[in-house]
Amino acid sequence: MRKTIVEMLKNAGESFISGESIAGELGISRTAVWKHVQKLRENGYEILSYARCGYKLKDAPDLLLPSEVQIGLDTKIIGKQMEYYPSVDSTNRAAKALAYHDAEDGTIVVAEEQTGGKGRLERKFFSPRVKGIWFSIVLRPNFSPHDAPKFTLMSAVAVVEAMKRFNLKAGIKWPNDILFDGRKLVGILTEMTGELGKISYLVIGVGINVNISREEFPEELRDIAVSLSEINGEEIPRVKFFRAVLEEFDKLYVEVNDRGFDKVLERWKEYNITLGKNIHVISAGDGENFDGKAVDLNSEGALVVETENGLRTVYAGDVSIR
Amino acid sequence: MRKTIVEMLKNAGESFISGESIAGELGISRTAVWKHVQKLRENGYEILSYARCGYKLKDAPDLLLPSEVQIGLDTKIIGKQMEYYPSVDSTNRAAKALAYHDAEDGTIVVAEEQTGGKGRLERKFFSPRVKGIWFSIVLRPNFSPHDAPKFTLMSAVAVVEAMKRFNLKAGIKWPNDILFDGRKLVGILTEMTGELGKISYLVIGVGINVNISREEFPEELRDIAVSLSEINGEEIPRVKFFRAVLEEFDKLYVEVNDRGFDKVLERWKEYNITLGKNIHVISAGDGENFDGKAVDLNSEGALVVETENGLRTVYAGDVSIR
Repeated sequence: MRKTIVEMLKNAGESFISGESIAGELGISRTAVWKHVQKLRENGYEILSYARCGYKLKDAPDLLLPSEVQIGLDTKIIGKQMEYYPSVDSTNRAAKALAYHDAEDGTIVVAEEQTGGKGRLERKFFSPRVKGIWFSIVLRPNFSPHDAPKFTLMSAVAVVEAMKRFNLKAGIKWPNDILFDGRKLVGILTEMTGELGKISYLVIGVGINVNISREEFPEELRDIAVSLSEINGEEIPRVKFFRAVLEEFDKLYVEVNDRGFDKVLERWKEYNITLGKNIHVISAGDGENFDGKAVDLNSEGALVVETENGLRTVYAGDVSIR
Repeated sequence: MRKTIVEMLKNAGESFISGESIAGELGISRTAVWKHVQKLRENGYEILSYARCGYKLKDAPDLLLPSEVQIGLDTKIIGKQMEYYPSVDSTNRAAKALAYHDAEDGTIVVAEEQTGGKGRLERKFFSPRVKGIWFSIVLRPNFSPHDAPKFTLMSAVAVVEAMKRFNLKAGIKWPNDILFDGRKLVGILTEMTGELGKISYLVIGVGINVNISREEFPEELRDIAVSLSEINGEEIPRVKFFRAVLEEFDKLYVEVNDRGFDKVLERWKEYNITLGKNIHVISAGDGENFDGKAVDLNSEGALVVETENGLRTVYAGDVSIR
């Protein structure tokens, strides 16, 4: 309802639009319209209203509200359903709850702030209020659990392609960290539920540091984290960037559903900064440590590492570039 | 509480035990003891009670009640927590709900009847009242999602080892159906939730046809399903058999946690009826059909099949023996 009001106001541009015509369009009373406008104002919308003229949108907030993100969002699957939180413990936790209760393919959970944001293996993820894009996507692809890691690679590729639209470049460290100048810009956490041979749902959490200045990072993160605004030299409009991410994500997801992962793997190789490097691996399979040279990404999305004792294939683990 | 009362009655054997001493032991009133006894009677326990003598257990029901199954259950992890349903839609569904709410490693859900029992890929699973053992186990092993299929193999091995205790033999068809004379005796469905490199939890559903006579199977299952009682020639006490399954499961699970899957894979190979056979495969990965000869089980639990075009590895799918 409120999304439609914002849409009407936006379409009206510089003109005023009467409370009566909004009420007529929506089939509600003028008082109800007024109440929705009040709610929108609470959410940060600056809406002028003059007797006899009606309403006019002066300024929209750079908040990741569905009424902002979904208008003009050009996607087929991603973001048709969207749940918004000013603050939430963890978008992945909220998205898993939705998925558990049958949320549809492409459903998004987004928050202005996460109070208990998590990365892989329960590590904390710094997610300050309105400074980043913290969101999770529920996917229900018709693929096997063996393919889940490739959806993680796909997510990293989508974010890099969104960055390209803003003339920003970064590299992907296997499997899915996005780095700039060795510092982390984006973290991705994929969680999966399924049976043998069949994914029930994936929840892919993405945390993008957007407008966090160096000083705003906690001291222990300053040398290892970076934000888009730091790379860009000025702040990035979060709504626009989020829309770009969802659109690139959608394109890749449609491609993968139709034709598989060839293109994703090819793009990943193009953007990655791991292959060809000497690396240190802590394998998640057995906790084993070893050094080697990253030589290839196989068709499963696993990293092929050349070691003293021959080739090893790493399906999951932590990699640091030496 | 009721489990303790049953335990005291069982320990008393042929003697009567006074309401007063039960009340004292449990720190409750004699009236409360009497109410618990009434409840136990409703659950099928035959409990004698005479003024001045107290209570005596005459007969316990062959129901899969925690008070029956857990007393004398010799396990380290499996079945310490147990949820019992006279009837439930699906034990896997109930166990997933428990797991989602942090149920501990080894938690069991068991039902006398499933009204919507499911096999792989949403197939119906016939689960009539008090005629089988329909249960699910929540596991939280410190392993990678890549290891999940091996826990399925482990579950099949556990059931075959429980059968051995009753001098019953059956074969495992890859990956985890248990067959007798080509007919299905046990079905297993594994569902997994995790992130890259880390299983959060597995829910392993096991359906064992125990005391179902030929005529009790629906017509369409008569030629493809079989029960333990049919093999055995007489009914099998369900509580005893269930305890045996949980104990064998526990032994293997402890072994796997300590030393990995070598022993499980070795036992699986010993009990399997797929290796060496000409088979038809419908691969779950890509839905592709092909024929070949099953030649090996690899260390991932996948089936290695010799085809006209060389060796193929099947991670998930349907196999029929030709």
